[in-house]
Amino acid sequence: MSLKEFEMSPKGTELDLDLIMANLKTDKDGLIAAIAQQHDTKEVLMLAYMNEKSIRESLETGQVCYWSRSRQTYWRKGESSGHRQKLVSMAFDCDGDAILLQVDQQGPACHTNRRDCFFFEVRDGKVHIDSDPK
Amino acid sequence: MSLKEFEMSPKGTELDLDLIMANLKTDKDGLIAAIAQQHDTKEVLMLAYMNEKSIRESLETGQVCYWSRSRQTYWRKGESSGHRQKLVSMAFDCDGDAILLQVDQQGPACHTNRRDCFFFEVRDGKVHIDSDPK
Repeated sequence: MSLKEFEMSPKGTELDLDLIMANLKTDKDGLIAAIAQQHDTKEVLMLAYMNEKSIRESLETGQVCYWSRSRQTYWRKGESSGHRQKLVSMAFDCDGDAILLQVDQQGPACHTNRRDCFFFEVRDGKVHIDSDPK
Repeated sequence: MSLKEFEMSPKGTELDLDLIMANLKTDKDGLIAAIAQQHDTKEVLMLAYMNEKSIRESLETGQVCYWSRSRQTYWRKGESSGHRQKLVSMAFDCDGDAILLQVDQQGPACHTNRRDCFFFEVRDGKVHIDSDPK
């Protein structure tokens, strides 16, 4: 399964969603990496995983749903915390093994209540915490 | 292995790089997902994988080096195409299973010669190619 046959298509080409979904390159658990980017500020908020059902649910409901690998269950972002991610748009990459979600994140995306998850910054041979937890 | 014990540290905390590296949550092949974001425009360019050696090489040389899962070898981005990625900064996420690279991408990041890899855009129940290959 591959998106290779479609990759040289020109701008404006319209493809069937089911066809593309059937050609995604998921891992052995049926998962694909998904990046969440705040649609207006362009901050990268987090990386998590989706399966086919969570992709379809996110498209249908407009709220992002992941698959939690640690809890082995669907993870409707913000369901318990209230920190929901509204889905603005979704795109697959050239080889069909990654998703870029443009989202509107309510409140913090990170479970530490930081805005984003990437707070271990490497600088000058050390790792620096670049924001406060809440 | 986990970064859990460090996640509630306040802003400004300095940690040892080797300690953090030893606690990254790699997959069974020793790999971790890495997002490349253009540092100034904030476009998400691509997602690829790194291992410990490619992380260290990228930090040392200032040029991004991935591990190619398809070719099973180190992939010094741009080595053959000239489309290099200069490393601007690197950060690990809260649970140590993803990396965010701020890069300066020379030319296109995608092997189709598009600027970024996320050109299969889902819209209105279809997938639309949103840029031309070159």
